Amino acid sequence: MHMQRIRVVKEALDANNTIARANRDDFDRSGVAVINLMSAPGAGKTTLLERTLARLEEWGTSTPAPRVGIIEGDVQGSLDSQRLAEFHVPVVQINTDAGFGGECHLDANMVRSAIPSLPLATIDLLVIENVGNLVCPAEFRVGEDHRVMITSVTEGEDKPLKYPLMFRACELVVINKIDLLPHLEVDLNRLLSNIDCVHPGVRCMLVSARTGEGLDTWCEWLWSRVRQQAILA
Amino acid sequence: MHMQRIRVVKEALDANNTIARANRDDFDRSGVAVINLMSAPGAGKTTLLERTLARLEEWGTSTPAPRVGIIEGDVQGSLDSQRLAEFHVPVVQINTDAGFGGECHLDANMVRSAIPSLPLATIDLLVIENVGNLVCPAEFRVGEDHRVMITSVTEGEDKPLKYPLMFRACELVVINKIDLLPHLEVDLNRLLSNIDCVHPGVRCMLVSARTGEGLDTWCEWLWSRVRQQAILA
Repeated sequence: MHMQRIRVVKEALDANNTIARANRDDFDRSGVAVINLMSAPGAGKTTLLERTLARLEEWGTSTPAPRVGIIEGDVQGSLDSQRLAEFHVPVVQINTDAGFGGECHLDANMVRSAIPSLPLATIDLLVIENVGNLVCPAEFRVGEDHRVMITSVTEGEDKPLKYPLMFRACELVVINKIDLLPHLEVDLNRLLSNIDCVHPGVRCMLVSARTGEGLDTWCEWLWSRVRQQAILA
Repeated sequence: MHMQRIRVVKEALDANNTIARANRDDFDRSGVAVINLMSAPGAGKTTLLERTLARLEEWGTSTPAPRVGIIEGDVQGSLDSQRLAEFHVPVVQINTDAGFGGECHLDANMVRSAIPSLPLATIDLLVIENVGNLVCPAEFRVGEDHRVMITSVTEGEDKPLKYPLMFRACELVVINKIDLLPHLEVDLNRLLSNIDCVHPGVRCMLVSARTGEGLDTWCEWLWSRVRQQAILA
């Protein structure tokens, strides 16, 4: 019985990869760079995106700035979508409790269902904000080019060792809420060393979405992904 | 195909409930009060348990204190078990990535596999520290008497609205890290109001596991659950 269960999961993952590939082809045809943004609940995904979109509006007044679209994944509700729609970018909400059985992650099929609602021809960068969870989102490709995670310093130094798959699945680890470090008993060097232990050499970026520290570096990284996609297209 | 998927999940949940009932019977026969402790990653479950066990050691020098056992659920590793074993209590580690397929939650069958390693006859209180996740752990009973969640103020005020099942599943919400409130833009009253919105009347407890604020109230609540179990047994 246990073997059968493993087989079913394997088939589900294979179907997911097939659909993820189809999503990726659609994004590639439109020249859209796609980021799958993951973290634990409350690590600051939406706040970082708010600051990113605000910075983009500033840049847009002087130079052409990338046009952003958002897919927002939540079990229930559309609070984050409402926050991001304030920035006049296209936002599509996926609720995983409606028709998907209350899933704790986005999968490729859910993202596929959102694609028709996205103006792919008029955006350069699509950010998919996953459901807040450090386990399952890392197991499901959704058609992204890049996987990024946020870990907040308030979560402690041990998270890479306890949720290694998530830290290994991502090419960039954004370490958020660094403005709180003076008020915590968290050893930043130990956190960095634990990340490097489970994913040697992975890029880490220190950010405070609240104060704006590190925001330029993060935005530059995003824009370079957009330029890379434009060259490949 | 979609209907079939729903049916399979239903059967799995029913099997889980059957095993959870068997676990509960075992715990009841031994007169052990059982707490299922859940939260997002890094909300402070283990730190709160460390402080609880330390307080218990202090109490034990003057009055008979409840004897505690721990089941520690993690995807991988035994960091938290090691921290708690320092307090000379029985700790059993369940790793959900070994033989369970990397699950993001504990289920009744996993807990059942841990029971033979627990000295049920010589403990009064069993705390099951679930995998850090605000979604799936709430869907699986494991044989507990009481479900408790921790939400950290650093996670923001909106979590009850985004993860309502978890907040509804618990009879006590411990609001942790309140020592950080002066450094956050978080409105505690809005958090309390959001909790009451999804679970009207649920008890909330303000705690700082770091400074010890609220720890007496939390320990009193735990001990009253033990006394209640002793009366019922």
